[in-house]
Amino acid sequence: MPVRPENVHQATLLRLLRDGGRSRAELGDVVDLSRSKLNLELDRLIEMGLVEQAGLAASRGGRRSGMVRLSPHIRFVGIDIGATSVDVAVTNGELEVLGHVSELCDVREGPAAVLDRAMELLGKLREQGLFTQLHGAGIGVPGPVSFREGVPVAPPIMPGWDRYPVKDAISQELGCPAMVDNDVNLMALGELHTGLARQVDDFLLIKIGTGIGCGIVVDGKIYRGVSGSAGDIGHMRVDDQGPTCTCGNTGCLEAYFGGAALAREAVRIAPRSSYLAERLALVGRLSAEDVAAAATLGDPAAIQLIRDGGRQAGQVLASLVSFFNPGLVIIAGGVARLGHVLLAEIRSVVYRRSLPLATGNLPIVLSELGDTAGVIGGARLISDHVFSVS
Amino acid sequence: MPVRPENVHQATLLRLLRDGGRSRAELGDVVDLSRSKLNLELDRLIEMGLVEQAGLAASRGGRRSGMVRLSPHIRFVGIDIGATSVDVAVTNGELEVLGHVSELCDVREGPAAVLDRAMELLGKLREQGLFTQLHGAGIGVPGPVSFREGVPVAPPIMPGWDRYPVKDAISQELGCPAMVDNDVNLMALGELHTGLARQVDDFLLIKIGTGIGCGIVVDGKIYRGVSGSAGDIGHMRVDDQGPTCTCGNTGCLEAYFGGAALAREAVRIAPRSSYLAERLALVGRLSAEDVAAAATLGDPAAIQLIRDGGRQAGQVLASLVSFFNPGLVIIAGGVARLGHVLLAEIRSVVYRRSLPLATGNLPIVLSELGDTAGVIGGARLISDHVFSVS
Repeated sequence: MPVRPENVHQATLLRLLRDGGRSRAELGDVVDLSRSKLNLELDRLIEMGLVEQAGLAASRGGRRSGMVRLSPHIRFVGIDIGATSVDVAVTNGELEVLGHVSELCDVREGPAAVLDRAMELLGKLREQGLFTQLHGAGIGVPGPVSFREGVPVAPPIMPGWDRYPVKDAISQELGCPAMVDNDVNLMALGELHTGLARQVDDFLLIKIGTGIGCGIVVDGKIYRGVSGSAGDIGHMRVDDQGPTCTCGNTGCLEAYFGGAALAREAVRIAPRSSYLAERLALVGRLSAEDVAAAATLGDPAAIQLIRDGGRQAGQVLASLVSFFNPGLVIIAGGVARLGHVLLAEIRSVVYRRSLPLATGNLPIVLSELGDTAGVIGGARLISDHVFSVS
Repeated sequence: MPVRPENVHQATLLRLLRDGGRSRAELGDVVDLSRSKLNLELDRLIEMGLVEQAGLAASRGGRRSGMVRLSPHIRFVGIDIGATSVDVAVTNGELEVLGHVSELCDVREGPAAVLDRAMELLGKLREQGLFTQLHGAGIGVPGPVSFREGVPVAPPIMPGWDRYPVKDAISQELGCPAMVDNDVNLMALGELHTGLARQVDDFLLIKIGTGIGCGIVVDGKIYRGVSGSAGDIGHMRVDDQGPTCTCGNTGCLEAYFGGAALAREAVRIAPRSSYLAERLALVGRLSAEDVAAAATLGDPAAIQLIRDGGRQAGQVLASLVSFFNPGLVIIAGGVARLGHVLLAEIRSVVYRRSLPLATGNLPIVLSELGDTAGVIGGARLISDHVFSVS
């Protein structure tokens, strides 16, 4: 296993350097340590191979302070397992993506097959010379997770994964610490580290894809709730009279909007859309992507479908905004590619239905990270752990 | 102004002692200080008059450790301004209520009149010899508050209070630090300190009274959101086709349930309820309390009204439970006195509509603190501030 910091001061310094190289003087401004104690801890981190000197900083008046940065040999891996894809990326200590590979892969093939695919993808990145040793791995899965144990718990769309020891399996395979979390939480961490949420302490990331979920960040940290299910908003009620959901209740958000609902609705409106009708005749089925393509071409029926879904999502989001009073809402996931028609509809409902005090300065935006949010979030998750005292 | 701790160690020790007297050895187990440094800080706190010796602890083997406790002269005041009442209590350093007085008082009389009433009530407690000097005051008001500035912000049911400097006025009047918060947040703090939530880090307190609000506790601290409006759930949507709300939207929770809605509905069902009909003839109007009284007497129309309201509240709460995954939900406020009929209905909706993972171990309970939750919460709020480094 790779070396870890020996005390909280070293851990704090490593996390600060992860978020950007600094001079010793700048670090001294941030941490509550005497100059000699600071230099002692930095020298020890250099000895341990986690930090290195990086020349002299610009003068602040008087002697120029030495720059320090994380060792360029530090490597984290982020693995983002989706319902229909797996993404693997390797980052440096600052969580910059050095290499990223992705493949279609059905999570229903089960943990052995899917994790094997992830390891093969990681093997490709190793062959490219991107790493020799890994310092940690962060893994996201599309379902509820017992964060402490690192196992999925009764995940509805992941047959065969219930309580599979994902964390232990990956940790053993790679010889480094590993952690597992819900994919939506990892996307929120990715946005926090390098995306639109960098300066925001309290925000929500709504993922609308095959399922619908919400990452909740409180004070710069993921809020998971007492049993790890916080943010599971797909089954929040839009309307009692709505369609029956896979969960057995009626009118859940996911029963209106989300990959499966959109595909079903696309078939329903195909008679009124030449694009969807042709596509259905050609392929035999329709998906959320087809709806997006039709809407992009200006198809009125497809645009209306997106508007309707956006309104339902907006109603749920309006409640969450009143309750949580976030500083930012990010819309992400496959359905987010429906783009600005969707965003406009969601915004209009939230700004109308939430409290003025909560929406006064509230940006609602589309994610700009796309598929990298999850893998960067995985690297962020495990780096928080590795750069802490065990 | 009273003395405050000089460093974080002293602040931590004071907060630990607030939550129960301890021996020096027990304190040493909890705080990360050497024995000599711990004794140094405790001796300094004794010198400052904040802490005192309290005999010897039971032996843990070896020399018996000295007990310490907060000075019995420490006094906090909690002031809970409601829509129709004001409560004032004085506590010791451990936040035990030494005296509590309450009066009916209409918040619409404006800040000068209402705060004068509060000061008069506090004067009564002073005359009883309960205190000479106060160490801090925590004040709750029934509306949104800018917590940092200590002023109400555009509070809908508090005409004349908008941006009134409540914190500064009380601090100056009493010669001690003061803080102002939303009344629901104070109730949640009261439950955290001495009520049902003592062992719970993440919980929700739903107040159903004249208005409806929610106190959110994350990791043992009030979560206020970016503009201080978190928990304002009264205008969450139950149903688009519902009654028009004072906020201008339709189908808000408050338009269904809460003091005003219940009073209106009571008049509507009076023809079917002999109790309510008699009361209406006698007094000329009906209130939520009348509905509670009728239900207690077994009046079927009143019980149905409470069931309907409980179902609407339960639907909103089910969404919040899925989203927030709390460890406990406490129902409080005037309408909570509708009691177990209400509780049963709320529980049945939440347990049916929220995710199983979120409700597996979720108690939903009625507050047992009643009117003391807010004043103890006020004392808790200001004690957190006074027992910290300024």
